[in-house]
Amino acid sequence: MDNSKTRVILITTGGTIDKTYDEGDGTLENRDSLIKQALLARLRLPYTELEVFSIMSKDSLYMTDEDRSLICMYIKNQLSRKVPIVVLHGTDTMTVTAEYCYKSIGDVNIPIVFTGAMKPLGFSDSDAQQNVTEALLAAKLLAPGFYVSFHNRIFNVPNVKKNKDKRTFEEI
Amino acid sequence: MDNSKTRVILITTGGTIDKTYDEGDGTLENRDSLIKQALLARLRLPYTELEVFSIMSKDSLYMTDEDRSLICMYIKNQLSRKVPIVVLHGTDTMTVTAEYCYKSIGDVNIPIVFTGAMKPLGFSDSDAQQNVTEALLAAKLLAPGFYVSFHNRIFNVPNVKKNKDKRTFEEI
Amino acid sequence: MDNSKTRVILITTGGTIDKTYDEGDGTLENRDSLIKQALLARLRLPYTELEVFSIMSKDSLYMTDEDRSLICMYIKNQLSRKVPIVVLHGTDTMTVTAEYCYKSIGDVNIPIVFTGAMKPLGFSDSDAQQNVTEALLAAKLLAPGFYVSFHNRIFNVPNVKKNKDKRTFEEI
Amino acid sequence: MDNSKTRVILITTGGTIDKTYDEGDGTLENRDSLIKQALLARLRLPYTELEVFSIMSKDSLYMTDEDRSLICMYIKNQLSRKVPIVVLHGTDTMTVTAEYCYKSIGDVNIPIVFTGAMKPLGFSDSDAQQNVTEALLAAKLLAPGFYVSFHNRIFNVPNVKKNKDKRTFEEI
Repeated sequence: MDNSKTRVILITTGGTIDKTYDEGDGTLENRDSLIKQALLARLRLPYTELEVFSIMSKDSLYMTDEDRSLICMYIKNQLSRKVPIVVLHGTDTMTVTAEYCYKSIGDVNIPIVFTGAMKPLGFSDSDAQQNVTEALLAAKLLAPGFYVSFHNRIFNVPNVKKNKDKRTFEEI
Repeated sequence: MDNSKTRVILITTGGTIDKTYDEGDGTLENRDSLIKQALLARLRLPYTELEVFSIMSKDSLYMTDEDRSLICMYIKNQLSRKVPIVVLHGTDTMTVTAEYCYKSIGDVNIPIVFTGAMKPLGFSDSDAQQNVTEALLAAKLLAPGFYVSFHNRIFNVPNVKKNKDKRTFEEI
Repeated sequence: MDNSKTRVILITTGGTIDKTYDEGDGTLENRDSLIKQALLARLRLPYTELEVFSIMSKDSLYMTDEDRSLICMYIKNQLSRKVPIVVLHGTDTMTVTAEYCYKSIGDVNIPIVFTGAMKPLGFSDSDAQQNVTEALLAAKLLAPGFYVSFHNRIFNVPNVKKNKDKRTFEEI
Repeated sequence: MDNSKTRVILITTGGTIDKTYDEGDGTLENRDSLIKQALLARLRLPYTELEVFSIMSKDSLYMTDEDRSLICMYIKNQLSRKVPIVVLHGTDTMTVTAEYCYKSIGDVNIPIVFTGAMKPLGFSDSDAQQNVTEALLAAKLLAPGFYVSFHNRIFNVPNVKKNKDKRTFEEI
């Protein structure tokens, strides 16, 4: 790897950010991850070496503890490499998964940053690009720990929850 | 009205073209018509005097004959004014409504152009803007009659049907 | 060629519509034509067989009579094929070139439609996509003759000029 | 001010990021600042209280030491308020201004983050939104000091210069 580059691991799990529209049946659902072609292609990341793992493609309302345990395992397996991690996740249960990992993994030596979007990335006014841009930078700047990064703000896990009415996250 | 302008009536009925995403519950549905703020604002129409009527907001799969008869009535009421008409309609039953009006109204003295979209207009790769742009121009250029305008092609009603696999309309 | 498709010839000559931004020196100039990758890729044209000829790449303020005579020659050479023609041209001298061809070619058996844009197509609020969409449809619908198609309006050549203040074309 | 919000000062000085296209004469130049309407409207910043100061509108190639001294004065005047500052600036002499302020102001108690763009924000593939998003977050996360934030990377002033060929900044 080019020495001037910072490696970041990006784990996609589905969620609103990654829902695609099917012109055949008019549904908006999680199918394959769009992140690589559609979103990362729009960002300029000359100093970032991204490793993208698409480990599941689920609306977070339907995530089970088994799914969460799988996500934690992926994170744990990477810890020895000391590469910061961004997890893209549905907003509805993002903090459930983040707390699950926070409790089951315990102390970490890298920042682990969860983010997602209120509106799928195919929409022209989606917040997906903003949130991913911020999470990637946060993963480079933050101290080790578990975080939610959303709408230009960093929250510490477990002191964060989604506010459905305000369509963002907030401190608890 | 400025004499250099051509008047066109735009009737919106809902359909994919006009579906909006709700960030609260993640649904993509017909709510109020977006056409005026979101789509027409992007077009340059210095010579077009648009009259927009939003008469219903329905996924065309759920349109009934009562709905269709209402759309026909709107069209009939305007015929005496000799102003060309564009009807925005869901693609799934667009030709059903177009044929319904063609049969129940009969001879007309203006072009009546149906159009819609395969992908809602909020998506960055929607075909909504293209189809509306074309339908507005077609309404000014075509001879009196019933038409479907879609993807830079004009079809005569009733010789047209949707091809779901090819995601466009075709001649029959 | 697929029989259901209509062939259209698209001649690009440069102009505002096709100017690109150089991030090195900050200039906005006519370099290679962008039309094929950047604009046509965004349109859905399942029934259009486009032949694109990029014959020059000039700001129309600097077009000479030699350039105009070259454009006319291209048009003349295609007449025997009876394929409608769209010419993309800078707006400043679009009507000069259109009249030049109208006078030097005389009667034609196809529509020849000039268009361009007030704002280069790379800008998010450019009128390039709208004007090209309309010109392609107009080329299929209009009677033989010379036209300027701009902002959802068709003008007959030679009865048209640019109105710089209103940022559009108008009848004379 | 709402206690949950972080105040950030945004100083605009012109530069590529803020150039606008004039449809009348075809020039791309610094006129009034677009940042407020065009860029900030696209970002979701529920926890950010922005104060925007548009203090000049200059291509940074034409910035003089007087201009630089004015920018420094603005920064100095704000230091007592302990509000982080983002400065939008042309890329060509961004590091000249940043070093000028770094030397003339000395120790600071807040982060002062310079950014800009390689392509004006009106272009659909501009890096303006990305760079501003990152700079706003960096201003909240970084320790006091002078920085350039660009393309998801933070550089310390004075150890940074523009690399024209690679169209980004790099460490020195």
